Amino acid sequence: MELEGRFDEAAGVVTVGSDARQRYHDSRGYGYPLPDGDGSNQIALSPVEAAHLLYRGDLAAVVHEETGERLDFQAFVAREPGDDFGVRFLVYADLRERGFYLSPAAEPWIDDPPAGPVDFAVFPRGKGPGDGEIAYALRVIGERTDVPASDLAPGVLAVVDEESEITYFDVDRRAPTGGSDSADALPDSPCEADLLEDRVVVWDPPVDLYERAFYGQPLEGREYDEPTLQCSLLEAAALAEQGAIDLEPATVRRRGRDVEGERFDRRLAVYTALRDRGVVPKTGYKFGADFRTYADVESVDDLGHSELLIRVHPADYVFEPRDLALDVRLAHGVRKTMVFALVDDEGTDADGADVEWWSLERLTP
Amino acid sequence: MELEGRFDEAAGVVTVGSDARQRYHDSRGYGYPLPDGDGSNQIALSPVEAAHLLYRGDLAAVVHEETGERLDFQAFVAREPGDDFGVRFLVYADLRERGFYLSPAAEPWIDDPPAGPVDFAVFPRGKGPGDGEIAYALRVIGERTDVPASDLAPGVLAVVDEESEITYFDVDRRAPTGGSDSADALPDSPCEADLLEDRVVVWDPPVDLYERAFYGQPLEGREYDEPTLQCSLLEAAALAEQGAIDLEPATVRRRGRDVEGERFDRRLAVYTALRDRGVVPKTGYKFGADFRTYADVESVDDLGHSELLIRVHPADYVFEPRDLALDVRLAHGVRKTMVFALVDDEGTDADGADVEWWSLERLTP
Repeated sequence: MELEGRFDEAAGVVTVGSDARQRYHDSRGYGYPLPDGDGSNQIALSPVEAAHLLYRGDLAAVVHEETGERLDFQAFVAREPGDDFGVRFLVYADLRERGFYLSPAAEPWIDDPPAGPVDFAVFPRGKGPGDGEIAYALRVIGERTDVPASDLAPGVLAVVDEESEITYFDVDRRAPTGGSDSADALPDSPCEADLLEDRVVVWDPPVDLYERAFYGQPLEGREYDEPTLQCSLLEAAALAEQGAIDLEPATVRRRGRDVEGERFDRRLAVYTALRDRGVVPKTGYKFGADFRTYADVESVDDLGHSELLIRVHPADYVFEPRDLALDVRLAHGVRKTMVFALVDDEGTDADGADVEWWSLERLTP
Repeated sequence: MELEGRFDEAAGVVTVGSDARQRYHDSRGYGYPLPDGDGSNQIALSPVEAAHLLYRGDLAAVVHEETGERLDFQAFVAREPGDDFGVRFLVYADLRERGFYLSPAAEPWIDDPPAGPVDFAVFPRGKGPGDGEIAYALRVIGERTDVPASDLAPGVLAVVDEESEITYFDVDRRAPTGGSDSADALPDSPCEADLLEDRVVVWDPPVDLYERAFYGQPLEGREYDEPTLQCSLLEAAALAEQGAIDLEPATVRRRGRDVEGERFDRRLAVYTALRDRGVVPKTGYKFGADFRTYADVESVDDLGHSELLIRVHPADYVFEPRDLALDVRLAHGVRKTMVFALVDDEGTDADGADVEWWSLERLTP
């Protein structure tokens, strides 16, 4: 027997009676049971769930309680019942097709819904709303929806692009750590250094400054057969701070601000935080990022693979999904993990800046 | 015998006498000969050339003509003789090391210097300034130097990053063309379509609309076993324009502007231009671009590889080298060519917009 639902547009639910509870909820994880004082087995469905049942042909139609209209899948979708209905339906249908049950991340669909901006609770394969296990706390957005950095939360972000393809990102905190200790590779007395337009030349540094601490780039860069090192302004600021070169830290920082504004202070804060964490940052320019990082540098001769790409943003930055896709895709392509370093305003004096670290990786549910 | 140069800082040249002409110019392509009325074999060097000879130890020193100072390589470099001396020297030295001779792109170093913002004329390997052949017209910038779109010129762009690593880009005009003709795959009468928040659903379209013309995305996207197509607003605007769906073109365009502003008009202008050129554009979202393109679509079942990634910018856009590095690197990683579509203001009415196409590819000299 084909069932029909009743659409209470104000409440934003579709109720279905008869044996809907067994047929849709208990066996396939749709909706939630309604108190069955009247002996019925009614359930309530979110519009997305109802649309999916209409789409599958499991529900014949839903009847609008006020207007009495009889809505099939096309008519129901055309009404866009509920916020972001289009993108949420696409993600719901995709995950159903991948063999997951999922519910709106809200009571009474599930108990103790996950906190934060979460749209769906996705249950482990083979589990449902009643089993109290959640595989993914899922947030759904369209590719044109901006994401304030302050909204980032551990979980899965599903982005629906303009052609309705879906990309899933695993979002998590990811503070870099490593075993690179460069302190004892620094010279005992300051090396002679010249501040050029937007870089610093260090003359006759100890070989270890490059080979073990991995500061700078030998002139001409091919091999390290002569003692002149080119350093970035970030490296030079860090070296000056530690008394390793004969330039004033303030002078180098001032030059940094001259050539790239306050962005320089944020990047220096992250550069310093990474060195403090035993991680060696080198420029990520070739990857369009601020840094690539090496967790365990013993010697530049066997450097190994850099693990992370790091992009620095102010704490109040607002991400565009398309930029996220670009960064994460590139990092994935070069077998690295994309990490965003969010620096709060304290960051602008480069000391004790508060840095939040977030990794984003592509995920296939 | 070691030679010394005379540095005329005002003129920005270093002159060397004795047998400098044979030793440096004729045999190794440095500088240009000075009229030798006095029977000498003098040459004039640009500061970058002089610095390289000092660096190689071929010149012992240069003497400052006004101050009489005797400058070695370190002292000469520390003076930063000339604009962007640091980055120009690094690129000059890198290309010399790669076995090229190169000269400042100016008379009297070479005859008929290439037009536009060019720093060096790089000669084919084995050739020099006198041979009248140029391998690359080379422009040198630091990674923090913005590049106005109007400055793009065919040639090679060398970007020196903050750690003095160099990336070379081959810049050229690249108008996409293809043999995809979708006109006769469109329906004879408009299909029923619903405009959702930021996409369009087309109900019961002819199978060819997707399978041959490659418009839209079947609902759930896995395989094409049912007739509902999701289209982007760009695809819908193009279909409405051709009377293939029952929506007003103006209505779809208005929605497009609502959700992404004037950027929508630029992207529609490029989308339309690509279809007119026999190229099928699909979203480039997963690559962080506006479009990926297919030059010869017969059927979606054997689609082949998409050749280009296209990013749309207004004609007065200003590129940041780091963004160029990101786009070109990503495109290279997925075996595609990065193309920038620059749309002038006419573009804002989506018809007959003037689009300039530029490709950037990584180059190893």
